Amino acid sequence: MAVYTDVSADDLARFIGRYDIGELLSYKGIAEGVENSNFLVHTSAGNFILTLYEKRVAEADLPFFLGLMEHLAARGLTCPQPVKNKDGGMLGVVAGRPAAIVTFLDGLWIRKPNAGHCAAVGEAMARLHLAGADFAIKRPNALSVESWRPLFEHAGARGDSVREGLCNEIVTELDVLEKSWPRDLPSGVIHADLFPDNVFFLGDRLSGLIDFYFACNDMFAYDVAICLNCWCFEPDHSFNVTKGRALLKAYEKVRPMSAQEHAALPMLARGAAMRFLLTRLVDWLAVPDGALVKPKDPLEYCGKLRFHQAVKSASDYGLS
Amino acid sequence: MAVYTDVSADDLARFIGRYDIGELLSYKGIAEGVENSNFLVHTSAGNFILTLYEKRVAEADLPFFLGLMEHLAARGLTCPQPVKNKDGGMLGVVAGRPAAIVTFLDGLWIRKPNAGHCAAVGEAMARLHLAGADFAIKRPNALSVESWRPLFEHAGARGDSVREGLCNEIVTELDVLEKSWPRDLPSGVIHADLFPDNVFFLGDRLSGLIDFYFACNDMFAYDVAICLNCWCFEPDHSFNVTKGRALLKAYEKVRPMSAQEHAALPMLARGAAMRFLLTRLVDWLAVPDGALVKPKDPLEYCGKLRFHQAVKSASDYGLS
Repeated sequence: MAVYTDVSADDLARFIGRYDIGELLSYKGIAEGVENSNFLVHTSAGNFILTLYEKRVAEADLPFFLGLMEHLAARGLTCPQPVKNKDGGMLGVVAGRPAAIVTFLDGLWIRKPNAGHCAAVGEAMARLHLAGADFAIKRPNALSVESWRPLFEHAGARGDSVREGLCNEIVTELDVLEKSWPRDLPSGVIHADLFPDNVFFLGDRLSGLIDFYFACNDMFAYDVAICLNCWCFEPDHSFNVTKGRALLKAYEKVRPMSAQEHAALPMLARGAAMRFLLTRLVDWLAVPDGALVKPKDPLEYCGKLRFHQAVKSASDYGLS
Repeated sequence: MAVYTDVSADDLARFIGRYDIGELLSYKGIAEGVENSNFLVHTSAGNFILTLYEKRVAEADLPFFLGLMEHLAARGLTCPQPVKNKDGGMLGVVAGRPAAIVTFLDGLWIRKPNAGHCAAVGEAMARLHLAGADFAIKRPNALSVESWRPLFEHAGARGDSVREGLCNEIVTELDVLEKSWPRDLPSGVIHADLFPDNVFFLGDRLSGLIDFYFACNDMFAYDVAICLNCWCFEPDHSFNVTKGRALLKAYEKVRPMSAQEHAALPMLARGAAMRFLLTRLVDWLAVPDGALVKPKDPLEYCGKLRFHQAVKSASDYGLS
């Protein structure tokens, strides 16, 4: 939620001149995306999004992210589409940063999703999993099980400053996850960050998916587990099984899961909770006392983790 | 440069429904304005700006600000125009904050203005001074000479933590300003914050003025003095007399100044430098050590103040 890099009008007009998108009329830094600087650009041809990739995104990954958006859009999935410049390229440089222009997507993100929204996201995610099947570039998941212990050790013992006993809880869970993490499940391109603020609606209709900068190759059911975590809990951290059922049912209508995937769901959901608990913990501890911007609460995912630990089988998520 | 208040899609759609501006399609928090939360809103009728007034703006002043924009736009000045709702009102409530919708203005602000840009802003400012003449509501300048010593005392002795000797320099100057502040010069509505980021250009043509939330009744020549401070210095804090001459000449083509105004210009310029030095100092000291967001450097205006102290007459600003 920040604009990191300032861009001058001259620099941007020069950059826009390399595209066939008319004349630059206006641009505003927008409070969207935590990894990159984003600008809403208005030209005589319409609205566009300009993204400047800051150092948290590896430049070597950009062909995967941009290529994937183009690949998915060509297969009918509504997502921002990279605009090609006059040389046919999708990547340029603005203010010393790698930069790309993507199409502007109308839509609103839902602060309080209901079961209908959960069904819509389940269906869209399954379509994404199928549409990514023949995408040529691969990108391993940099935030999967192998990364979690190093991430925890980076935050270190300071975890207990957030809540007494938190470190011990994490270590105990990491031991379980590393021993029992599912392997050999159906895999392919996953979004890996399909939170409500990355899913747009117009009325009750899902109108598009955005922010593919965590997308990678991993187990499809792990993407489902991430969505169970970020769509189906209530603000008090209780699980809403009606929403879970709606999400899973709509997903399986498009891509039915195997018995192995069903069986793995509780462990995958524990892993997904751990992944967001850890990255939020690191961000939380990186912010100095008294800072104006407070990052997201890591303990939200601690509560979700405990729910998943108590789950007996995928039917507790509403699987019928 | 921040969005303070989050707005839900449902709340905003309900609010937009009270206007004749079509259906809500998208909204993004934009990194613009330090006093308010601003959103770029896309509806089926086009682009608009939604502003939520945070506590730094007094609600009692809103009829002045919104009425002024409407008044100036009706007299041919290009500035955001408040959109009236179906009841004819310009002010509503979103997320518990007073809120207004204004028209979206195309244009780019110039990071490195040249003499041509300075001339354009001089002319536009003079037109604003004339167009405001018959505006009925009055608003005294809350940041004029009477406010500076209390502002300084609020920052207190901590000024010396920014630079050794700064407090003494400020007190000495305040003594001069309070004794010699010009009175009885031609007055009316001034913008009072016409910095480069509040002036839009399309190509070399000035396309609009924005951000009227410091506008007030005060001496016209004080507005000119503010612009000499924020448009005519180089990044190394040296004064560029070519830019000063361009700004003053273009201003006087529309509204010639009196001999009294010319004579007062150096003292008004010292006061303008003091006003921005002090508010920046207060903001600077309010931010905790190690915070991610650094406010603007108060010492920039200390350098400008010293230049004005050495000025012999308005001809040093390029007045011919």
